[in-house]
Amino acid sequence: MLPIRVWPLPRRPGAGHAGLRRLFSAQSKAIVYETYGRPLDVLKIHSFPLPDLGPADILVKFLASPINPADINQVEGVYPLKPRFRTTEISSATPLALAGNEGVVEIVDVGPQSRLHHAFNPGDRAIMRHTLFGTWRSFAVAAAQDLTRLPFTTAQISSVQAATASVNPTTALNMLTDFVDLQPGDWFIQTGANSGVGRAAIQIAALRGINSINVVRDRDDIDNLKQDLSSLGATHVVTDKEIADKGFRATIKSWVATAGGKQIKLGLSCTGGDSTTNIARQLSAGGHLVSYGGMARKPVTVPVSLLIFKDIHLHGYWLSRWSDAHPDEKETVVNQIFDWINQGKLKHVPVNTWSWTDDLSDDERLQVFKHAVKTYIDGAHGVKQVLVQT
Amino acid sequence: MLPIRVWPLPRRPGAGHAGLRRLFSAQSKAIVYETYGRPLDVLKIHSFPLPDLGPADILVKFLASPINPADINQVEGVYPLKPRFRTTEISSATPLALAGNEGVVEIVDVGPQSRLHHAFNPGDRAIMRHTLFGTWRSFAVAAAQDLTRLPFTTAQISSVQAATASVNPTTALNMLTDFVDLQPGDWFIQTGANSGVGRAAIQIAALRGINSINVVRDRDDIDNLKQDLSSLGATHVVTDKEIADKGFRATIKSWVATAGGKQIKLGLSCTGGDSTTNIARQLSAGGHLVSYGGMARKPVTVPVSLLIFKDIHLHGYWLSRWSDAHPDEKETVVNQIFDWINQGKLKHVPVNTWSWTDDLSDDERLQVFKHAVKTYIDGAHGVKQVLVQT
Repeated sequence: MLPIRVWPLPRRPGAGHAGLRRLFSAQSKAIVYETYGRPLDVLKIHSFPLPDLGPADILVKFLASPINPADINQVEGVYPLKPRFRTTEISSATPLALAGNEGVVEIVDVGPQSRLHHAFNPGDRAIMRHTLFGTWRSFAVAAAQDLTRLPFTTAQISSVQAATASVNPTTALNMLTDFVDLQPGDWFIQTGANSGVGRAAIQIAALRGINSINVVRDRDDIDNLKQDLSSLGATHVVTDKEIADKGFRATIKSWVATAGGKQIKLGLSCTGGDSTTNIARQLSAGGHLVSYGGMARKPVTVPVSLLIFKDIHLHGYWLSRWSDAHPDEKETVVNQIFDWINQGKLKHVPVNTWSWTDDLSDDERLQVFKHAVKTYIDGAHGVKQVLVQT
Repeated sequence: MLPIRVWPLPRRPGAGHAGLRRLFSAQSKAIVYETYGRPLDVLKIHSFPLPDLGPADILVKFLASPINPADINQVEGVYPLKPRFRTTEISSATPLALAGNEGVVEIVDVGPQSRLHHAFNPGDRAIMRHTLFGTWRSFAVAAAQDLTRLPFTTAQISSVQAATASVNPTTALNMLTDFVDLQPGDWFIQTGANSGVGRAAIQIAALRGINSINVVRDRDDIDNLKQDLSSLGATHVVTDKEIADKGFRATIKSWVATAGGKQIKLGLSCTGGDSTTNIARQLSAGGHLVSYGGMARKPVTVPVSLLIFKDIHLHGYWLSRWSDAHPDEKETVVNQIFDWINQGKLKHVPVNTWSWTDDLSDDERLQVFKHAVKTYIDGAHGVKQVLVQT
């Protein structure tokens, strides 16, 4: 295949554009699917020529694209946001959906009209402004309204960090602020504390003086995990087995009493099933439980008495609904997250990166990506799989 | 036993008081329990002399006292509001709890101090201002702060109507207003539509132009019940079996579309279990489900996707929490209910009355009451059991 030079590129007006049009008559490589199904069965790689760059177009290279649970559910056909199956733009006789929703891109070239507005310049980095763009690919032609400029250098925030920050810490920050007015000394409790959202929630809460009780699945190296989460600022880390024990309630009560007696006002759940019921039971009267995931593939069940007599409220949180409806607010929140990362206040989640390099064949690219998906499916919870191009 | 004359009584200041003190040196009869347990096992009758009327005291006769689910749960020991087990006031060596929380009384006599304030006069009727008074009894000595005057004649609102109105229609009215701003043309859906709360909700909603989908348990005389609830203003009545069928969703959608396409913004559940899950599924995006009872003795279960992607919110409603915290607001709401009843806009729930007459022995009074309880327990849902004295 043709070697694709992407950076540095000539930045003089005019020259770059003409030069790039020629360079990028090369192929784009994208992870696609023709029908919904198990990702390892239905995901394919599709090569297609990049279209000519129109006056308002922006040519981008994907630097880092994470695999999020929503992406997988989307491929499975069980996610409410459905992709568009398309043909012409991607030169395919069969309608194909482009997979992946989040990613960090580098601006490679901009059409003359976009160039005039100076919103994006070659070398800038950007994140997706909306879902459904199809981010598991090498290059794409985007429009200005598809992108949010990333005002940090790679030295400040790596592309891998940026690619994951727009989803998990944003979800965590919004859930910690949208449902309950948590004050310093207050508590929240969460399942799946080891997840990307869970780790972000621990740190964001700690930044604000909010205590956390963090439930994780029991495992052989539980002490390491407890230490790991404690180092992020977790007040307490408990296993799902511990919290399932009725007697453990007294332990939690004594923790809260010892720390000033403020209330457990919020619960965050990415599981469903028993773990979720068990954290609902720990909430103080009038508390709110927010469900943002269903990793246990079981519904949320709460005793009627918790709702009626303890005045517990249940909600769901879906980042995509909010971010697609409020792209400007999203930009503000994401910039807050990036500021924290840049200041070292928010640590990165553990990441596996999977590289697409220029020397790989299409089939090799697909195999690299399927390995990433398999690692996700096999349950590397807490470790984010990210496709990168260098 | 002594025959107790209660009305008419001399109303001249002074004379009545002295006369009553003498008359009511007779016994009060109260349904009590020594330990929590199954109501038919633990409920007993206790006779004790009425205490002398102090200057601020008010002597009351119970005219009508309903059996509500909360009363039964309280006797079973599974209700969060616990009665006080007492000895001296009721002349018992063993600590006993007085059962029953709601009732309508007639003022028989007032002590000289209360008489001065003219808040209550002999012949007035009143309802309980707080829970836990112990209303399943013949006579009691109360204080002004225990009572809310009932500003209607018996011709306007019977005591049986008044005794049930302060609980069920109040619950219905508050649930229809506290969680969602329902506008004319909007919809709500409910389980246990045949209950006291359910019937009140149908009528109050209809008064405001709000549509209702009413779920009842399937039964032999289902057509009669459907007709009954329709006559109250129910827009549609469906069985739990019908709504459990996935295909029925299309029927409900067409009902809503035909009626102007407004949304099903609110669900009310007194059951738990599958019925509750099934009405949650019918709610429009962003809808609220309120649980106020657990007749099915099963928890509330909702798919994670309903919370996250459909933005459904779950709450509980407990009238006693509200009414004990806001007695003045309760008075306003109850008076609104009484106005509707008086205007014929709110029909009474079906009632079985169980009479305590002067000629009954203590054991006979207990048997009458246990029959009422047994009728309740055997499942006369939608028919309220009320203890009356004439």
